Amino acid sequence: MPEETRRIVVIGGVAAGMKTACRLMRVNPSSKVVVIDKCKEISYGACSLPYYIEGLFDNLEEVRMTPVGVVRDEKFFANCKGFEVLTLTEAVAIDRQRKVVRVKNVESGEEREIPYSQVVLASGNRPILPPLPGIDLKGVYPLKTMGHAQGILAKAKSSKKAVVVGGGFIGLEVAEALIHRGLEVTLVEMKDQIMAGLLDGGMAALVHRELRKKGINLRLSEGLQSIEGRDGEVVGIQTSQGRYPADLVIVAIGVRPEVELAKAAGLEIGKTGGLLVDDQMRSSDPDIYGAGDCVESKHLLSGGKVYVPQGSTANKQGRVVADNIAGLKASFPGVLSTLIVKVFDCNVTRTGLLAQEARNCGFDPVTVLVPAADRAHTDPGSKPILIKLTADRASRKILGAQIVGPGDVAKRIDTLVAGITMGITVDQLAQLDLAYAPPFSSAMDPLHQTANALRNKLDGLMESLEPQEVYAKQQKGEDFFFLDVRSPKEFEEVRLSGAQLIPLGALRGRLNELPRDKEIIPFCKISLRGFEAAMILKAAGFSNVRYMEGGILGWPYHMETGKK
Amino acid sequence: MPEETRRIVVIGGVAAGMKTACRLMRVNPSSKVVVIDKCKEISYGACSLPYYIEGLFDNLEEVRMTPVGVVRDEKFFANCKGFEVLTLTEAVAIDRQRKVVRVKNVESGEEREIPYSQVVLASGNRPILPPLPGIDLKGVYPLKTMGHAQGILAKAKSSKKAVVVGGGFIGLEVAEALIHRGLEVTLVEMKDQIMAGLLDGGMAALVHRELRKKGINLRLSEGLQSIEGRDGEVVGIQTSQGRYPADLVIVAIGVRPEVELAKAAGLEIGKTGGLLVDDQMRSSDPDIYGAGDCVESKHLLSGGKVYVPQGSTANKQGRVVADNIAGLKASFPGVLSTLIVKVFDCNVTRTGLLAQEARNCGFDPVTVLVPAADRAHTDPGSKPILIKLTADRASRKILGAQIVGPGDVAKRIDTLVAGITMGITVDQLAQLDLAYAPPFSSAMDPLHQTANALRNKLDGLMESLEPQEVYAKQQKGEDFFFLDVRSPKEFEEVRLSGAQLIPLGALRGRLNELPRDKEIIPFCKISLRGFEAAMILKAAGFSNVRYMEGGILGWPYHMETGKK
Repeated sequence: MPEETRRIVVIGGVAAGMKTACRLMRVNPSSKVVVIDKCKEISYGACSLPYYIEGLFDNLEEVRMTPVGVVRDEKFFANCKGFEVLTLTEAVAIDRQRKVVRVKNVESGEEREIPYSQVVLASGNRPILPPLPGIDLKGVYPLKTMGHAQGILAKAKSSKKAVVVGGGFIGLEVAEALIHRGLEVTLVEMKDQIMAGLLDGGMAALVHRELRKKGINLRLSEGLQSIEGRDGEVVGIQTSQGRYPADLVIVAIGVRPEVELAKAAGLEIGKTGGLLVDDQMRSSDPDIYGAGDCVESKHLLSGGKVYVPQGSTANKQGRVVADNIAGLKASFPGVLSTLIVKVFDCNVTRTGLLAQEARNCGFDPVTVLVPAADRAHTDPGSKPILIKLTADRASRKILGAQIVGPGDVAKRIDTLVAGITMGITVDQLAQLDLAYAPPFSSAMDPLHQTANALRNKLDGLMESLEPQEVYAKQQKGEDFFFLDVRSPKEFEEVRLSGAQLIPLGALRGRLNELPRDKEIIPFCKISLRGFEAAMILKAAGFSNVRYMEGGILGWPYHMETGKK
Repeated sequence: MPEETRRIVVIGGVAAGMKTACRLMRVNPSSKVVVIDKCKEISYGACSLPYYIEGLFDNLEEVRMTPVGVVRDEKFFANCKGFEVLTLTEAVAIDRQRKVVRVKNVESGEEREIPYSQVVLASGNRPILPPLPGIDLKGVYPLKTMGHAQGILAKAKSSKKAVVVGGGFIGLEVAEALIHRGLEVTLVEMKDQIMAGLLDGGMAALVHRELRKKGINLRLSEGLQSIEGRDGEVVGIQTSQGRYPADLVIVAIGVRPEVELAKAAGLEIGKTGGLLVDDQMRSSDPDIYGAGDCVESKHLLSGGKVYVPQGSTANKQGRVVADNIAGLKASFPGVLSTLIVKVFDCNVTRTGLLAQEARNCGFDPVTVLVPAADRAHTDPGSKPILIKLTADRASRKILGAQIVGPGDVAKRIDTLVAGITMGITVDQLAQLDLAYAPPFSSAMDPLHQTANALRNKLDGLMESLEPQEVYAKQQKGEDFFFLDVRSPKEFEEVRLSGAQLIPLGALRGRLNELPRDKEIIPFCKISLRGFEAAMILKAAGFSNVRYMEGGILGWPYHMETGKK
């Protein structure tokens, strides 16, 4: 078959596939491109679906509209972008010898072959639906497509109780959406924390508190065993711990790369289960590229492969694929596993490596926990955030961060992403000329405060404990002096059990009240005064002193309130 | 005099001075430190004063309170930090031979000497008050101290008309505050734009529009000539262009480093007028350090010296000074001249070099202007921002950015600050794994979109013009085809004069309507479709095509509205 009748066949018309096709037409307007997708809806923003369910916008079509309100359908792409889209068309096989893609019309079942010069696999992900009894009942949904969102919303409107299975970011977003819709929501997570593997336990515990505060019945360490139904409709679920009635069940336990076609074509699959691609996004067949949720990516710090499906990554990879097909030089460097999710009034984000991951990669991670106000405290919009920052002891390079709180966490994580990507050290971070004015930040930005706290730790100026470590000591009944250095007024409002009050201003004069033979653990609201108290005690000859990082704001466990 | 009776004398007790003293006590608790300040109020956040005037908080004391409400006075520093503060005490001379600071009690006039081991000059800045007739009238204020803020607010409450002289960030903040207080406000600026030297004219013009929209009588290119009074009270001002009545006049034409004491002591002053210091913040006398608004800083990109007084910089420098005095190794690398200011509903920020500055430093700057939504367009809180990004042609490193708009500009500038500091290229910027979820960003963050637009320009994929260039062509009566490729509905709402509508989707079919002998300048709302149109035209053989960057959102001049 002559070259000119061969086309670039893009399999999958959502984020990565459409980006590839659009970019290709821009850089090489004479390209012959066809995009095929087995669904009718293409080029939609799946990430917005939970917010549709929540009711933040009413017209579901908005998820596939341009910002000025034009629906991105086949006609739009033909007219505005100059390429063909075949919807309701499934790719059933890639014949790499003959260089044809066999496609099937989903409605008619009719099959035909499309000759290709290059194939772009942008087949996306597939929600994991465990083969449990009842998984096929009416009222049980994953959330991936516009159809799922429509189904969930319709069902939610006539439901009272919902169960969301899975505490990843889709589960969290849908759980919140259903609460806003007035449902009683139970969130079931098999692990002992939400976002396991992405957030440390202590940070996750703060999110647990927010979920419970907003009325979610959060069930941790409970595995889904079966889904129960009556007359084909879901009525509840059974976990390892109990039974939860439900008219609506969302299964959001994760997604897998959609690589069946690739496997059948004999393409190499990576260890994560995603399509293996090189830096140019080429699969093991140089005429077949992959992009988006069906491929695995390189982690910029560990160098290893990770599977972190994200619409943002899909768009970047699509551009790289297009440029390479067009003969321009382009490569995709990798990801930092950056994630962000809004959980009611708590923003949750992370990037880079957790301490344990860092150790596994041969780093020597040192971590600090610092709460701070996201703006000047005189600004009425100022809200707290809690930053957990990790650096490598020898190189002092930042390895990762987790940030939670009602304040602006997104700005800090993006700043860190830029820094980490470029190999920033904690010392460089502390000196960044970040933008300061009271409506936006404090004179020492939370990132500066956190970097300085971590420098103090790395420099051996002070030792400290995380709240979880202190809590564990309490649970074990260890004997230590738990020193609250806040003001009497603050102490009256909220206290940690077992802590004794000596306000910082009075500490120098009341050193005789402190034991010389026990560990002393000072803290305050954010543990800046706690740190200061520790320095005062050390200077006064107390040798066994470690302040508690995070203070009251970092303490995710029970607190006593009201007059003592 | 024996060494142990000598102290570290910190001159100036606001940001840099207090940071130095506090840090010093932490890292070296046996330090003998005394802070002297000629004012009663110390350790206050001057940046919050405009917001006090505006009424965002009622208790002026908050600007010198800790976040938990403790006033940072002499007693606080003695009890909590362990050092002495002498207020109402002016440093009148530094005797470097004898190593003593001569101080004077401001009330009693009594003088005495304090022996020092090291001096820290943290004397801050001094507002420029031009020696014009009437500058001493009642009702004429600079804004630096708590007293000024108190005076301005008291006067504002009984005033109807105010004039603010100076379109720098203090002038802008105070002008807004006074509008919120119900005054008629005239803002007089000698240059033809606000924030001259910090923002390009086109970006400033967008801020001008916001100021006028919110009721400010903005008078550009007008120099203050005299201030007029009656019975010692201000009644108006005279500029080069006219007379403006006023009960209240704020003079905010800039600040100068307070270096009289340093000069008198024979210390070297830099070209900017600020105290010359090395990377360790040491002045030309190794026992005298400088920090904060009285020193000049190195610009990280140009390598030259700049004077950019900022509370954030002062805090960082104070820590460096303390560490060096304590014998720890520390240096301050420099600044990027990052600034941010809220102007009503428009956030304005910048960092790095403007194109002209970059050229003067030997770079070959290439700039692009890109409007974008700060969040997914399905998010109800989504707002536009306009990014102007500059990179060096050869190295492709980012040199600077200006961002304005109602949306989240702070996140993007801080991300750029981290990147620029670390030498990021436009290609690396385009691939950053920034945090994406609809409440926080779009899948392609505005930074990614802007970086990609700049890459297209650097790669010669497309040529473009800034709105100012197009406007200049119009003013000169140049003949070109001004092609609006938006939808008819958008066109009906708002239009640029002289532009003709061919919606992007119809363009391929209507190429015959376009001239082959004239320059064609396509645009749309944000000029993404404008760019696309240019690519289509080029592919169709039109050779003289440049799209207009920024589109409607970047156009700061008059627009036609309503049905044509």
